[in-house]
Amino acid sequence: MPNEQAHSVLTAAGSAAPMIIEVTRGNMVESRHRADIAIVDPEGKVVRAWGDIEPPVYGRSAIKPLQALPLIESGAADRFGVSTAEIALACASHNGEPRHVELVTAWLARIGCSVGDLECGSHAPYHESSVEALLRADRKPDATFNNCSGKHTGFLSTARHLGEATAGYIHYEHPVQQRILGVLEQMTGLRLGDAPRGIDGCGIPVIGIPLGNMALAMARLADPDDHVPPARAAAAKRILAAMAAEPFLVAGTGRFCTKVMEVVGAKVVMKTGAEGVYAAALPTLGLGVALKVEDGAGRAAEVAMGRVLHELKLLNADEEKTLADALTPPIRNRVGRETGRIRPAADDAS
Amino acid sequence: MPNEQAHSVLTAAGSAAPMIIEVTRGNMVESRHRADIAIVDPEGKVVRAWGDIEPPVYGRSAIKPLQALPLIESGAADRFGVSTAEIALACASHNGEPRHVELVTAWLARIGCSVGDLECGSHAPYHESSVEALLRADRKPDATFNNCSGKHTGFLSTARHLGEATAGYIHYEHPVQQRILGVLEQMTGLRLGDAPRGIDGCGIPVIGIPLGNMALAMARLADPDDHVPPARAAAAKRILAAMAAEPFLVAGTGRFCTKVMEVVGAKVVMKTGAEGVYAAALPTLGLGVALKVEDGAGRAAEVAMGRVLHELKLLNADEEKTLADALTPPIRNRVGRETGRIRPAADDAS
Repeated sequence: MPNEQAHSVLTAAGSAAPMIIEVTRGNMVESRHRADIAIVDPEGKVVRAWGDIEPPVYGRSAIKPLQALPLIESGAADRFGVSTAEIALACASHNGEPRHVELVTAWLARIGCSVGDLECGSHAPYHESSVEALLRADRKPDATFNNCSGKHTGFLSTARHLGEATAGYIHYEHPVQQRILGVLEQMTGLRLGDAPRGIDGCGIPVIGIPLGNMALAMARLADPDDHVPPARAAAAKRILAAMAAEPFLVAGTGRFCTKVMEVVGAKVVMKTGAEGVYAAALPTLGLGVALKVEDGAGRAAEVAMGRVLHELKLLNADEEKTLADALTPPIRNRVGRETGRIRPAADDAS
Repeated sequence: MPNEQAHSVLTAAGSAAPMIIEVTRGNMVESRHRADIAIVDPEGKVVRAWGDIEPPVYGRSAIKPLQALPLIESGAADRFGVSTAEIALACASHNGEPRHVELVTAWLARIGCSVGDLECGSHAPYHESSVEALLRADRKPDATFNNCSGKHTGFLSTARHLGEATAGYIHYEHPVQQRILGVLEQMTGLRLGDAPRGIDGCGIPVIGIPLGNMALAMARLADPDDHVPPARAAAAKRILAAMAAEPFLVAGTGRFCTKVMEVVGAKVVMKTGAEGVYAAALPTLGLGVALKVEDGAGRAAEVAMGRVLHELKLLNADEEKTLADALTPPIRNRVGRETGRIRPAADDAS
């Protein structure tokens, strides 16, 4: 049972209320979101928590940096000359902008694969003018446009390097996914064989992990020495360095991950996930963060993560000012007038 | 104070838990939504409630049928030969599909206005292939594509008929909006001059109204005789008949309002609003429904409204079967595999 395991690894911080993110309109709060949040150190001490951090949560794309560890540890990255940019893409939920797609396509070719080997399916790019460009060219988006195409190319690289079948690499039983399960077990301190399980939007397994343990895994990514084996520690550092060096490749134009990392630099390496999940590795503090908005709203997950960075004093006054519209986004009507804001509720302010 | 007024009008049903809508993935609930719901009769008796129905809520587009009453009561609809289809559009949050846009454009011309008189702003159509058609034609969406363009054309029709300035018809002080405020006061049984207030996405005022009173207004729309003045009762019947006759015009391809009304006919007249609001007038039962999902999620508002219709036995077995994927929608990954469902939590099942 993941929850029992969680107790055995984490030092609890006691119960707390969830962080409330409110959406205002005029002189009233129109909608409210509840975020459970864990801030944990690499020993498993809960430094701070909002809400309940014990129930299992699917990390979705927020744990892509953990899922990228085997790409490096296995030797696949060195074997195929995987670049810093490509490592960032392996951890990305990218916008499907031209640079994302071009880099993934070239990487696929270098490992002897093509778009047909990607099992993630396709969807229109997140980035509006990239959607328009496709339509104008009368092109349908293929799987390289999928926001997860870099992660999948990383999976294919590892399978190629280790001589495994590439077909079926998305399935729970395939060595690629079993290797990731092992990584997640070590990083979270949990046995996950009986954890809740489902299928992600891109077809790979999702595993239910208590938020506290997800934060622990991020803390171990942020401060790996003495907490993970040396090869894994080296891989962790390379992954965080790549994401910090290439914030555009991790997400893209207009995206919260990209905007924040471009402003704050390597002290915050953060990653969004579907259904209101966010994770961050904070190397300067040696802490990990994992949060989940109960209702799955990404707009609230971003504001909650921004508030966590504020509470941890990771943003200086200039950075807060530069990021103001990302940290508490305005809501605008169809003629551009500001009609409200998304912000942490006053009780959570500090 | 709206809440004091609410007490004076509504017969309370006692406190109750919100309806929980859950989003599953694999063998776990991934996300949860909370819906406050009021079912009220035209005398103000709360027939059933989930959660807290007293705090003010912005009805957003869910109260468009109420905002359309002056179009008919004023004589504007008869003066300009406004059709059943156009009345449905006045109550619509439409997809911006060709038929929506063509009808609005023709109606505007008939009242001596044009797209330049619409103050709602523009946005890309909700309907994907209509977006694509615009892009292929290298056209930008104008204000007729705005989902609220029918409502705004109704406002312009009333202003034209009464000889009022059309410019500025979106502002709180303009007679068009003051007339609507009066309608809302009579239908909800509240004085609203001091109610919370903001600006909607399309630029018009939004007024905070307790959910119970919003449901009361819908009940009076559903069963107007003896509850509203005769001219208003006639207008109410004409509006509900138009929406029931033209469910496609009220929303469009693939939309929940349209799908449900196409299947169930005139016994349910329902309307979605932004930020997780839904309202319905139920003429066969003489009841009104208003609901708000705390976090603003439309996906949960639809499922909650479907559950209300189920609880009120408004759907027969065939209708439930036909609407199964609308009532508890599947979640699919990028290759079309079902990975979860959105559904009422078991405690709310019956």
